[in-house]
Amino acid sequence: MTEDALTHAEGRPGPAVAPTTAPGAGTLLRLLRDGRPRTRSELASVTGLARSTVTQRVDALLASGLIGPAGEAVSTGGRPPTTFSFQPDARVVLAADLGATHARLALTDMSGTVLAEERADLDIALGPEHVLDWVVNRGRGLLGGADRRVDELLGLGIGLPGPVQHTTGRAVNPPIMPGWDNFDVPGYVHDRLDVPVLVDNDVNIMAIGEHHTAWPEASHLMFVKVATGIGCGIVSEGSVYRGAQGAAGDMGHIHVPSGDERPCRCGNTGCLEAVASGAALAAALTAEGVPASGARAVVELSRNGSVPALRALRQAGRDIGEVLAASVNMFNPSVIVIGGALALAGDHLLAGVREIIYQRSLPLATEHLSIVSSVAGESAGVIGAAVMVIEHCLSPEHADALING
Amino acid sequence: MTEDALTHAEGRPGPAVAPTTAPGAGTLLRLLRDGRPRTRSELASVTGLARSTVTQRVDALLASGLIGPAGEAVSTGGRPPTTFSFQPDARVVLAADLGATHARLALTDMSGTVLAEERADLDIALGPEHVLDWVVNRGRGLLGGADRRVDELLGLGIGLPGPVQHTTGRAVNPPIMPGWDNFDVPGYVHDRLDVPVLVDNDVNIMAIGEHHTAWPEASHLMFVKVATGIGCGIVSEGSVYRGAQGAAGDMGHIHVPSGDERPCRCGNTGCLEAVASGAALAAALTAEGVPASGARAVVELSRNGSVPALRALRQAGRDIGEVLAASVNMFNPSVIVIGGALALAGDHLLAGVREIIYQRSLPLATEHLSIVSSVAGESAGVIGAAVMVIEHCLSPEHADALING
Repeated sequence: MTEDALTHAEGRPGPAVAPTTAPGAGTLLRLLRDGRPRTRSELASVTGLARSTVTQRVDALLASGLIGPAGEAVSTGGRPPTTFSFQPDARVVLAADLGATHARLALTDMSGTVLAEERADLDIALGPEHVLDWVVNRGRGLLGGADRRVDELLGLGIGLPGPVQHTTGRAVNPPIMPGWDNFDVPGYVHDRLDVPVLVDNDVNIMAIGEHHTAWPEASHLMFVKVATGIGCGIVSEGSVYRGAQGAAGDMGHIHVPSGDERPCRCGNTGCLEAVASGAALAAALTAEGVPASGARAVVELSRNGSVPALRALRQAGRDIGEVLAASVNMFNPSVIVIGGALALAGDHLLAGVREIIYQRSLPLATEHLSIVSSVAGESAGVIGAAVMVIEHCLSPEHADALING
Repeated sequence: MTEDALTHAEGRPGPAVAPTTAPGAGTLLRLLRDGRPRTRSELASVTGLARSTVTQRVDALLASGLIGPAGEAVSTGGRPPTTFSFQPDARVVLAADLGATHARLALTDMSGTVLAEERADLDIALGPEHVLDWVVNRGRGLLGGADRRVDELLGLGIGLPGPVQHTTGRAVNPPIMPGWDNFDVPGYVHDRLDVPVLVDNDVNIMAIGEHHTAWPEASHLMFVKVATGIGCGIVSEGSVYRGAQGAAGDMGHIHVPSGDERPCRCGNTGCLEAVASGAALAAALTAEGVPASGARAVVELSRNGSVPALRALRQAGRDIGEVLAASVNMFNPSVIVIGGALALAGDHLLAGVREIIYQRSLPLATEHLSIVSSVAGESAGVIGAAVMVIEHCLSPEHADALING
C-alpha cells in the first residue's frame, strides 16, 4: 500500500506524457473494461506488445480474477482461440456519502452498480473517529450481508460535507465539521480496513455519480447542489475538474448582481449562498412571518402551495442562474444538473435557473445545453464515491499492483 | 493531407483511451522532444517496443531529419551506443496573427522560437482572399529571407479576430469581418501552400503564446484581452480549454453587477464589454467632454495624466475583476494574464482587477494566484499560432504521416 494509493484518483488528465515503462497488465485491463471479449492475438495486435508478454499478462489477470474466459472466437483455421473479458463482480467497493446530519453507505460492484445500500441519521459533528468507526463497522456489515469477504474489497470511497485537500484526503477548514480539520481520514480508515481509501468532498462525488448514472457521454457537466449551502462539482472530459489548488466549484461565495447585499458567513456580502441557499430562504421566509426551519421546511412549504415559498424558490433559481450564466459563457458546459435538498421542491427552482441562463448567455453556448434535475438523486454521492475508487484502482498506474500482489 | 490535418490541433486531452494500434515513430518523437538524447536501448526499454521495431522507427526519424545523432552514450562494455535527439530547426513554421486593422507574421523553428517577424497595416474587412493572399505571399517572403524552402515548412497557423469553429477552422458570425463568415480559411490557404493549416481565434492563440513564453508550468492560465472588445483564452493542463461547443472564454457578454445597464451590441444590457472595453471607455470619456477615438486614445490620455481616463481605466479593471472573481471561485486558475491594447495603459487597469479579485474571491483560491500583465506582449499571438501548429503536427497521431512521407 503506497501513500499515493491512499489519496485521490480523480483529477483531470494532464497533457499527454511519455510512458516511462513498458505497458503492464493494467493496460490490457483498461482495454478489456469496455466489456468486449478479446483473444490474446487481438490484445497483442492492439497494444503492440510481444505475444509472449501478452500471454504472461493475461495469465496474471486470470489469476487475479479481474478477467475471465468468455468463450471462443471464430477460428481462422485450427483450434478456436479463447476470448477474455472483464469481470465486474470479481471485487466489490464500499462507498460512504456523509452529510451534516445523515450518512449513506453502499456496496457496489466494479461497474458502479449498487448491490446493497443503507441510510442512517449520523451527526458529522460527532467527530471523525465516531463517524468513521460507523463507516467501517457498517461497511463490514454490508459486506457480510452480501456474502463478500474483506479481501474481495477493491477500496473504500468517502464523500465529506466540506472542502477536502485533493492530495491528502484531509478536510481543510470545514465550517460544519468540528474535529475534522486536517484529520487524516484515509490513514484512520486504512488502519481499520486494509484497502485503498479515497476521500473527496460531497459535491465532487455527486457530480461523478450523476455523470456516471445519467450523462456518461457529456464532455462538460456541472452539478450544482442547492441545500443548506450551495456548491458545484465539475466533471470535464471524464474527470473531476479541480483547478490549480483544488478549490474549483466554490460557487456559494460568488457575488450575485441582485442588489441584495445580505452579509454572508464568509465575511463578504451578497454571496450567492447568502441570498439563495436553503438556509437563506428559510431565514428570509421566517422574517416574513412564514416560519421555516431549513431547506427541507422550505420544500415542504412549497409543496403545500405557500406563495411566499414559491416566490422565494423562483428568485433563488434566478440568483443561481445569474452565477451559472457567467460560467456558461466562460466555460461552455454541455449539462448543468440542479440537485440537493432545495431541488426537491420541483420545477420552481429549475425554472428560475433556466429563465436567467437563457436570457443572459450567448446562443452558441446554450444551443445544446441541457439544464436538468438530478437523475441519480440521493444515491448520486455513493455512486460517485464508488466510481472514484474504481477509476483509481483499475487505472493502469495502480492496477498492476493489484494484479501482481 | 487528410481533412483532419487541415483543422485544429488544440483541444483538451480526453479521458485516457486505449491505444488502437502499436505505437509508431511519433511516440518515439514525443519522448525525444524533451531534448534529452537517448540510445536505441533506452527507447526500447521505455516504450516496451521490440528492439527491431525501435531500430526501424529511429531510421525513419533520422531520414525525416526530425532527430539526429547526438554523440555516444557511456559504454557498458563494447562499442559505445549512439544517442539521438530532437532537431528543432529541422523544420520551420509560419504564424499569422490577424487583427482588425493590422497583421503580424512570423517564422519560427519547432521550439516556437521566432526567427523572423513582420508587422503590417492590413484591414481584415478587405475580405479573406485579399488578407490570406497577403499571408501566403509575405510568408513565402519570410521563408526566402531566412533561406528556407517551402518543403521545410511544418505548417501554417492563423489567428482570426472573431469566433472560429474548432472542427473546421472557419469563422462563425464574426462581427467585424465582412466576407469571412463560413469562409474555408484552411482550404483556401492550403490550395496555395501545401502544408497543414490550423486556424483559431486570436485570444486562444494569445493564451497559448503567453503560456509557452512565460508560464509553461502553469496548470490553469486565463488570458484576458482587453481591447476594442473583451475576450478570454484559457489554457488548462497544457491545452486550450474550449468547452462543449468551443464557445468557452466568451467573457465580454457576462453581466457585470455594477448597476450600469448600458445596452450592448449583443442585444443585452450591462455586459462587461458594454461597460469596460476600450470602445466603451472611449465613448464614455467622449460623452464626458474628453474626446477619445478608441482604446489606444484612452491609453494615450492616461499616459498624459488625464484624471477621467485614469478613473475610467481603474473602474474598467474593477468591472473585469468582478467577472474574473466569479471565475476564480468556480475554476481556480493559477495565473490570470491581462493583455490587449487597453492593458498597455500600465497598472491602472491591472490594479482595479486585483482590487476586486482579492476582495471577492476566497483565500484558498487566491493564495497562489498570479494576476499579471502579458510578457509575450504583441508577439503572444504569433508565438501561440506557431505552438498550435507544432503541437498538432508533432503529436503521435500526426507525426507518423510526417515521418513516413
